[in-house]
Amino acid sequence: MIGIEDISFYLPENSISNYDQKEMFGINDHFIEKKLGIKKTLIKNAADETSDLCIKAYKNVINKKGDVNIGDVEVLVVITQNPDMNIPHTSAIVHGKLDLSENCACFDISLGCSGYVYGLSIIESFMKENNFTKGLLFTADPYSKIINRKDKVTSLLFGDAATVTIISNKPIYQSGKCTFGTVGKRCQELKCENGELFMDGHAVFDFALEYVPRDIELLLKKNNIKIHEVDKFVFHQGSKYIVDSIARILGLPNEKVVFDAEEYGNTISSSIPIILSKEIQKENNKTILISGFGVGLSWSGNILGRV
Amino acid sequence: MIGIEDISFYLPENSISNYDQKEMFGINDHFIEKKLGIKKTLIKNAADETSDLCIKAYKNVINKKGDVNIGDVEVLVVITQNPDMNIPHTSAIVHGKLDLSENCACFDISLGCSGYVYGLSIIESFMKENNFTKGLLFTADPYSKIINRKDKVTSLLFGDAATVTIISNKPIYQSGKCTFGTVGKRCQELKCENGELFMDGHAVFDFALEYVPRDIELLLKKNNIKIHEVDKFVFHQGSKYIVDSIARILGLPNEKVVFDAEEYGNTISSSIPIILSKEIQKENNKTILISGFGVGLSWSGNILGRV
Repeated sequence: MIGIEDISFYLPENSISNYDQKEMFGINDHFIEKKLGIKKTLIKNAADETSDLCIKAYKNVINKKGDVNIGDVEVLVVITQNPDMNIPHTSAIVHGKLDLSENCACFDISLGCSGYVYGLSIIESFMKENNFTKGLLFTADPYSKIINRKDKVTSLLFGDAATVTIISNKPIYQSGKCTFGTVGKRCQELKCENGELFMDGHAVFDFALEYVPRDIELLLKKNNIKIHEVDKFVFHQGSKYIVDSIARILGLPNEKVVFDAEEYGNTISSSIPIILSKEIQKENNKTILISGFGVGLSWSGNILGRV
Repeated sequence: MIGIEDISFYLPENSISNYDQKEMFGINDHFIEKKLGIKKTLIKNAADETSDLCIKAYKNVINKKGDVNIGDVEVLVVITQNPDMNIPHTSAIVHGKLDLSENCACFDISLGCSGYVYGLSIIESFMKENNFTKGLLFTADPYSKIINRKDKVTSLLFGDAATVTIISNKPIYQSGKCTFGTVGKRCQELKCENGELFMDGHAVFDFALEYVPRDIELLLKKNNIKIHEVDKFVFHQGSKYIVDSIARILGLPNEKVVFDAEEYGNTISSSIPIILSKEIQKENNKTILISGFGVGLSWSGNILGRV
């Protein structure tokens, strides 16, 4: 039996306030607080590469747990679409910096906001198939590398972060059955061309509202769980308005839906594990539903059960 | 039971002869034929993106098989370190171009010359865990995008190609137990910086000779198979000299070791599936050992058994 043993994250110190950009973008407090739900976004140090953000997340595991027997790690996965460089993969660079055993599989997965939910299923299946008992799943997608600071749609939204999830045979949560999907024909609605991020905000918002609630109904059915039996819903933190709208469509009570991005922004594949790192510590959370959606356009859902 | 149902590949029409570069690089026929083993390398059309190479490989499946019930595909994976762009992932673009079902998981894996062997294990584990019965595993890593044509180490070696492997519940070969490894501390020996490929040829050669034969011994042991019971050895086609040297260290008979890159070059993650597409058609090949190694630095092995 393998599953999530622990999760840690790293948030950079540097920030950009959205209140300071009210005039430039013609927005007001209502928009910042009720629509975006993001008061500031965080920006990595210029010298920090994607692999360095992973290392900083890893150091926070060590601070918390003392030791993770790093020599036992059999697989290291990094979810990113902003790697240090395209060759080699960032997971190999992290492997080198952490001085892991040579008997360790390393690969990067290229996915955006659905990446953590996909990645959890990919690394867990890979570990089960290969009889591995310890793995590290990193997320780190520093959009500050590619954001045009004059673009209202993206620059008020995305913040840098990194997370690491320890997957092991001493889990506190186990995965249920998952859902996955892609509308490749709409992949141009969220892309990076010539080094610059572009998002058709309205189109991606409409996509989320059309596909995600339907996928969650399917996910519940697949796992034979009623919606009221879920203790916490952790959606990708696209914006407060997206999270609120999905919750409203599904008729979810406010106290079961987490929005936490106010002080750091939409951190792409890190958004779900940042919240999970706190929620998995609460013993009352027997059943946590996670749902990621975005780049691809793609989505994925999973229902985590407390062991 | 899932495994390899079929494999097809695409090789571009445009080529660069290594004989035409003898003077420029101060090399002779002996070097071209006995060391490199590569007479020419192939170059994609300038207009073709990585996803287009995947589509062309896919069309060759259709030409061969007539139909693959594309609507049933539940997962599509692309192995590449030269994607169309970094956001979105190339698998989503291919998904759109092939007009696949929305109920299809798509992700890219960033790995180089070990990518096919890793990717086979990743997609098969993912499919087993999620009860999927049909998947497409693509490789396409057009190094022509990043090669400096004045660099002797890389420009005589690497060629463009793409492959697609159908993984299904009607397999003709099944995977055995796999091996994986990484020496992340040496990842700078093969990298792409500022859009240009760099390889420390001697260091990567030494790495292959030090690690790969030892890994193959481990792989055989893990699968409880004696070396003489393997019918065919399909190594990554780094160069003729690398393949010959690994075969010599392991004491393998010439007729069991395939070298096939003479007319197309080292095609990175496509090198093994191009050869496999032919070898899996031969009924005498009951047991095929595959071994990939390169970027990371990384390696992976698998032993395929005829069903």
